[in-house]
Amino acid sequence: MTFVPDLARRRLLATGSGALAVAGLTGVSRAVAQTAAPAPAAASQAKPLPAYVAWKDADSMIVHTPTTIETKRTALGSSAITPTNRLFIRNNLPAPDASIVANRDAWQLSVEGVREPRTLTVGELKTLGLETIATVLQCSGNGRGYFPTKPAGTRWGVGAAGCVVWSGVPLRSVVQTLGGPVNGVRFITGTGGEKLPDGIDPKTVIVERSVPMTMLDDALLAWELNGEPLPLAHGGPLRLIVPGYSGVNNVKYIKRLAFTRDETDAAIQRTGYRMSPPGTKGDPSFLPVWEMGPKSWINSPAPEAGPIKAGWVQIQGVAMGGMQAPRKVEVSLDGGKTWREASFIGPNLGRYAWRPFVLQAQLRPGTYSIMSRVTDSQGNVQDESTPDNAGGYLNAGWRAHAAQITVA
Amino acid sequence: MTFVPDLARRRLLATGSGALAVAGLTGVSRAVAQTAAPAPAAASQAKPLPAYVAWKDADSMIVHTPTTIETKRTALGSSAITPTNRLFIRNNLPAPDASIVANRDAWQLSVEGVREPRTLTVGELKTLGLETIATVLQCSGNGRGYFPTKPAGTRWGVGAAGCVVWSGVPLRSVVQTLGGPVNGVRFITGTGGEKLPDGIDPKTVIVERSVPMTMLDDALLAWELNGEPLPLAHGGPLRLIVPGYSGVNNVKYIKRLAFTRDETDAAIQRTGYRMSPPGTKGDPSFLPVWEMGPKSWINSPAPEAGPIKAGWVQIQGVAMGGMQAPRKVEVSLDGGKTWREASFIGPNLGRYAWRPFVLQAQLRPGTYSIMSRVTDSQGNVQDESTPDNAGGYLNAGWRAHAAQITVA
Repeated sequence: MTFVPDLARRRLLATGSGALAVAGLTGVSRAVAQTAAPAPAAASQAKPLPAYVAWKDADSMIVHTPTTIETKRTALGSSAITPTNRLFIRNNLPAPDASIVANRDAWQLSVEGVREPRTLTVGELKTLGLETIATVLQCSGNGRGYFPTKPAGTRWGVGAAGCVVWSGVPLRSVVQTLGGPVNGVRFITGTGGEKLPDGIDPKTVIVERSVPMTMLDDALLAWELNGEPLPLAHGGPLRLIVPGYSGVNNVKYIKRLAFTRDETDAAIQRTGYRMSPPGTKGDPSFLPVWEMGPKSWINSPAPEAGPIKAGWVQIQGVAMGGMQAPRKVEVSLDGGKTWREASFIGPNLGRYAWRPFVLQAQLRPGTYSIMSRVTDSQGNVQDESTPDNAGGYLNAGWRAHAAQITVA
Repeated sequence: MTFVPDLARRRLLATGSGALAVAGLTGVSRAVAQTAAPAPAAASQAKPLPAYVAWKDADSMIVHTPTTIETKRTALGSSAITPTNRLFIRNNLPAPDASIVANRDAWQLSVEGVREPRTLTVGELKTLGLETIATVLQCSGNGRGYFPTKPAGTRWGVGAAGCVVWSGVPLRSVVQTLGGPVNGVRFITGTGGEKLPDGIDPKTVIVERSVPMTMLDDALLAWELNGEPLPLAHGGPLRLIVPGYSGVNNVKYIKRLAFTRDETDAAIQRTGYRMSPPGTKGDPSFLPVWEMGPKSWINSPAPEAGPIKAGWVQIQGVAMGGMQAPRKVEVSLDGGKTWREASFIGPNLGRYAWRPFVLQAQLRPGTYSIMSRVTDSQGNVQDESTPDNAGGYLNAGWRAHAAQITVA
């Protein structure tokens, strides 16, 4: 008798196995060929890390370009928090010079659209309040590589995302201190401190985003990431965090915070990051890329790790609700025909965080198309497919995120 | 009018400031001289990190010796999680050779005192279950530097502690798989995989600890720390995690797990780590150093950071319950005469984690003796003083942990 069947027998006999759901599969014919694109980034794994993020864990990262660096699926771990040295990078412009983090407390933020507009240093912001929040930070284009229409842009797989912890001052505390917003404002507009290339109209390249005032209560001006001073590469010394909103809305090196009646007319807001149909250009008539929705995926077993051994397997992944907490997550091992509820594990970090999950299953030799599907606390279920859009944004379709694994 | 008073005025006028408690202090005579020892480790800050932890953030650490390395108070952050590159080190023996993490899944654990004893590899353990837990990892001697009797051993301040996230297999799942414990066992005994010096009776140096079977339900065999494979320096490839129990009970590089009728007779358990009175030697008649109790302290403002500017200050610290969740934490700015409730911030990571807290206070020039006092969910209050003991263990006294700060 080999080892694995013996353990499997014991597992079946075991009682009180706590959070673990046991799903025994006895057939070998459950594999279903799926249409998911292959892991899109495999060819890029050999590029070295650029100097400004040389401190990242090279073995965990896929370098697409110097400003687009993805976390490998196998490096996302099972502990809810994504370590900073494994967190993806997506910068719209090169990171500013490191001199801006030499004296973090001196960084200046100008606040406009409040009754008493003024410039505040980070040192002053640190006297106004303190809060900590865990959020999924996810590039607006994460999953783009799984759109069959191959929209232009980085062909991210699952790893332009992480769940991290931010500390800073609540935006509402800053606004209260400065007398509250002026009348009639509808948007929070943040401007990034990137150094802009010479000879170009700044509006065409500047990172300036507007999000609805409804996010005032939950937004943060963060100076700490996962317990450390916010690294330059992730927007230090100061970053606007809009929980539940995709990456681009979380403005790095924020230098200006304005409460405005209209959305900014910077290109990145006016035409960029819009949910426009394939073949069209973005314009303000299309929805901006703002809120994230329910999304989950499998991290282990990972297709790129090769065939796995038959027997008991812990099928692991992460599930997020976007704007709501995830309530349950299901796993399919047969291409979406049948589903079994998986168990969330570990501490619940709040509604904007993701939750790792696990399903224990006994797998016999064969090929499997495995995927997951999350339901949020409001009953919203992860979409089977995300409609194609010109920018390849917000892909959360569970079918496209299927992982094909071979059990030998 | 200077900037700070203006902000202060606004703060006083502000409404709905959420989680922030506002404590305005208007007197300058609140400072009370305290008997707390000065920060004990200041003289050691210049020692370089040893090679096996060269990846730690040097600026965050105080190197006492190559096997005792403390986190600076100012580096503990406000985000609940302690980043691995800032986590303290306390090894009873030098770390084993890095070859033991070259093939993590091949590491072997022998399990005894169960109905079907056997040796399991980490790869096999990974098929048996998965759980994640956040715990305060705290050296048994943390705070030793604040005992006035100056017990022998590293004079830790506050930073031989961190709050971290572990993932691994629940101990109960392993035991169930192997048929359950044999009759009559009362202890979980773990043996570390350190290479022992030649020519010495192993029992005199081996890291082998016993903890009560009551911890079976919550203990973990962990292979992941803060989302990364458990580093060698912290006990990788496999560490026994006994939540709520002080550091030494969390056996690194665990190679043998035995369910036993008696505590081990290894010196580290029989005579070491006992709560024996000053001047005595430890022996089994004294309580072992096991459970941690309620403890909290101030991290910011930090005495070592020098005088701070008068005005609004965010007084920050961390509070743990030990075996129970912290329920409330109070701060005193006048040497323990009066107390104000502070606010916990950020996600609650569970009963064994600590919670960062903040109290916003307006400080006028003067000197202040500031400290904190936590109450756990069972109503247990942090002790004012921890009785002296020969080993200088488990110092949690709030008076000894006072921080003297100067406001200019």
